Amino acid sequence: MKTVVQKYGGSSVATAEKIQRVADTLIKKKNEGNNVVAVVSAMGDTTDDLINLAMSVSKNPDKREMDALISTGEIISASLLAMALKSKGYDAISYTAYQIGIKTSGIYGKSLIDDIDVKKIRNSINEGKIVIVAGFQGVNEIGDITTLGRGGSDTSAVALAVKLKGECEIYTDVDGIYSCDPRKFKEAKKLDFIDYEEMLELASLGAQVMHSRSVELAQKYDIPIYVGLSCSDIKGTVIKGVKDMNLESKPVTGLATSDEDVSVTVQNLSSNINILSDLFEAIANRKINIDMISQTAPVDNLVNVSFTIPKNEINECMAILTDFSSKENILIDEDITKFSLVGLGMKNTTGVAARLFKVFSDANIEVKMITTSEIRITCAIKQEYKIKAIETAAKHFNL
Amino acid sequence: MKTVVQKYGGSSVATAEKIQRVADTLIKKKNEGNNVVAVVSAMGDTTDDLINLAMSVSKNPDKREMDALISTGEIISASLLAMALKSKGYDAISYTAYQIGIKTSGIYGKSLIDDIDVKKIRNSINEGKIVIVAGFQGVNEIGDITTLGRGGSDTSAVALAVKLKGECEIYTDVDGIYSCDPRKFKEAKKLDFIDYEEMLELASLGAQVMHSRSVELAQKYDIPIYVGLSCSDIKGTVIKGVKDMNLESKPVTGLATSDEDVSVTVQNLSSNINILSDLFEAIANRKINIDMISQTAPVDNLVNVSFTIPKNEINECMAILTDFSSKENILIDEDITKFSLVGLGMKNTTGVAARLFKVFSDANIEVKMITTSEIRITCAIKQEYKIKAIETAAKHFNL
Repeated sequence: MKTVVQKYGGSSVATAEKIQRVADTLIKKKNEGNNVVAVVSAMGDTTDDLINLAMSVSKNPDKREMDALISTGEIISASLLAMALKSKGYDAISYTAYQIGIKTSGIYGKSLIDDIDVKKIRNSINEGKIVIVAGFQGVNEIGDITTLGRGGSDTSAVALAVKLKGECEIYTDVDGIYSCDPRKFKEAKKLDFIDYEEMLELASLGAQVMHSRSVELAQKYDIPIYVGLSCSDIKGTVIKGVKDMNLESKPVTGLATSDEDVSVTVQNLSSNINILSDLFEAIANRKINIDMISQTAPVDNLVNVSFTIPKNEINECMAILTDFSSKENILIDEDITKFSLVGLGMKNTTGVAARLFKVFSDANIEVKMITTSEIRITCAIKQEYKIKAIETAAKHFNL
Repeated sequence: MKTVVQKYGGSSVATAEKIQRVADTLIKKKNEGNNVVAVVSAMGDTTDDLINLAMSVSKNPDKREMDALISTGEIISASLLAMALKSKGYDAISYTAYQIGIKTSGIYGKSLIDDIDVKKIRNSINEGKIVIVAGFQGVNEIGDITTLGRGGSDTSAVALAVKLKGECEIYTDVDGIYSCDPRKFKEAKKLDFIDYEEMLELASLGAQVMHSRSVELAQKYDIPIYVGLSCSDIKGTVIKGVKDMNLESKPVTGLATSDEDVSVTVQNLSSNINILSDLFEAIANRKINIDMISQTAPVDNLVNVSFTIPKNEINECMAILTDFSSKENILIDEDITKFSLVGLGMKNTTGVAARLFKVFSDANIEVKMITTSEIRITCAIKQEYKIKAIETAAKHFNL
C-alpha cells in the first residue's frame, strides 16, 4: 500500500474547525487506500505567542530553553488532530520527536535532521492507524529538544517521506508555486511543475512558500513534493527533478523580490586579499547571511566592496566592519529591493541578462547591483521600482 | 550539600512577573548553599484552556492524546523559568518527563509514578545548575506521555525529593494548612504541623491544598512536606509523621466540608449479600468514587442502602443502579454538604462524635448520614446549615 506523508502548516490547523477539515481530508486519503502520515505545524500564531512569552521573561532567551518552549506548539496541534480523527471513528495516534526518535544535530533553533527511527510509525501504520507527527522538532545527541527553524515542518515531512519511502504533499494557504508572487503581480501564472534548483533559488530569494532544506532533502533523495492549498481540490505544483520537464520552452521559470535586505558598501579598503578574506570570515563567524558580493577594480591598491545582508543583522555587522574601516567609509543603503529571475533554462539560453537589462532600461529602472549564478540573475533596485520591475519583467518573460 | 525540591503551582507561575519572582526565590535558596530543584505546574489556567481546546475538536477526547496535549503546559512553564534564571545570570536547565525518565503506569490522566532516573538531574546539580522539572507528567511503559491527575505536580515534587534524598517544599497560593477553610470560617487557625493521616483525610474531604498521593508518598518514605505561600516569608505548615507531634493536646486537628457530592438511596433491595456486593462491584468497575455507605437493618429481607457519589458521576451511576432496582426506588438527594472532623487524637479521645452531635443538636442542625473512621467523623447535612456547622464546630473544638 502507498504511504502518503501530508504536511499541514499553521494556518491550516489554526482553529478547531480547520483541524476538523484536515481530519476529513486525511480520512479521505486513508479511504482511498493509502497509509497516511500527517505532519503538523503549530496552530496559527502559537509559535509567535510562545516567543513573545519567552521575551517577556528574558531579553535574550536561552536557546536550549527556547527550543523546548516552542516545540510544544506542534505537540498541541498533533494531539488535537489525533483526537479529531478518533472522534470521527478513525484510529489515529500522535507522536512527538522524542517518541519516534527524530535525531538532530547542529545549533538550537536551526538543527538538522540526522535520522528518524520509523519503526514505531510503521507499526502504527500496520495497525491501520493514521499517524500524526509533531513537525519542526527533534532531539539532539544529548537528549535536548531542538527545532529545525521557521518552516521546519516541511523538512520533517520530507524526511519522513524519505524514510517511509512514501510520497510527500505539503499543504498550505497558497494553492501552489507561482512564477512570481500573485500578491505583487495579479496575472502571475501558477506552475504545474518546478525544478528543485529553481525552487531553491526562489525560496532563498523571498518566495516563502517552502522551507529550503525540505527542497534540498527532496532533491537529494529525488522525492517529488506536491505543494497545494489545504483541504481543497485545486491543483497545485509539483517540485521535482529536471529530467521530467521540458526545459527548452522557457528560459525563466520564476521571479522573486525581497525587501528584507540592505546593501553595505565599504570604501577604500586595501585590495590585499588577506584583508578581504578576514573581513568575510569575521562576518561568516557571526553567522550573518551575506549575499550579492561585488567588488570594484582596485585604484591605488584600494577597492570598494559591496554586499547585502538582512536588515536585522545590520548592527551586528557594523560592529565587525568598524574593525576594518572607519565609519565614514561604510555606506548603508536601506532603499533596495532584491529582484531575481530564476530558471534552469538560463543554462541553455544566452542573453537572458541582456534581455532583462533592456526591459529595465526601457522602463527607466536603475540597477544598483548585479549578481548572477548559472540559473539566476539578481539585481538590487530602488524599492519604488519594485512593482514596475515585476510587471515589465513578468510580461516580457511570460511568467 | 542539602538538596531542596520546591514545587510551584499554576497560580505561582501565572505571569512573566510571577515567574521572575519564583526565579528570585530559587536564586535565594541556591545562594544559601542548597542544591535547588524546582517542579512547576502549568501557568494559570493553561491546563483548562488546553482541555477546552480538546473539547472543541472532540466531545469525548481520546485519553492518550489528552495527556500528550495537557503535558505541554508544564513544559512551557519549566522552560520559561529556566530562561528567567539564565537571564539573571544563574545556570539552569529544564527537563521534561521524557528527558529524565519519569516512568509511570496505570491509566491515562491518573498515572502513578513508578520510578525516576535522577542521574541527569544529579549531573546537572553537580554542574551547579538549578534544575527545573515539568511537573504532572510521566512516560508509560509503551512510551506514551501520561499525566498524574489534577494537582499531580505535588506528587512529582515528592517523588523527586524521595529519589534525590532531599527536602520537599510545596508553594501555592495559600500560606499553609488551616484547621478549616479560612474562606468559610475567618477565624480558622493555621497549623504549624499536621500528620500525614490527618492531611490525607482532609485532602480527600475537600481541603484541596494538596494532591493526596503526594502525601501518601511522603508518608511512605517519611519525608516532611513544607506547604507555604510562594515567594513569601510567612511561615507555613509542615506535614509530617505523628511521632514528632504532641498528640494529647487536641482531639480534632481539622475540619473540612464539600458540596461536590449527592447522596443516593436505593430502597427495598434484597438483603442478599451477593446483590449488594454485585451492586458495589458494578459501581467500582466504572471507577465511580463512592463514599459514606450506610445500610438499614433488614425488614422482610429488604434493606435500604445509601451512599454518596460525586455530582458529575450521577448519570453513570444511575445507569448501573437501574440494573438492580426500579427508578421509583432510587432516591437522589442533591442538597447535602459533607462535613468532616479529622484528628489523630480521636484515636485516644472518646466522645468526639458525641460532642459533635451535641453541638449540632444545640444549633438545630439536622444530620442526614454519618460515617466514621478511626480518625474522622463525617456527617451529611443540608447545605443551608454549612456555615453554621463550621462556625459552631470550629469554636467548640478550637480550630
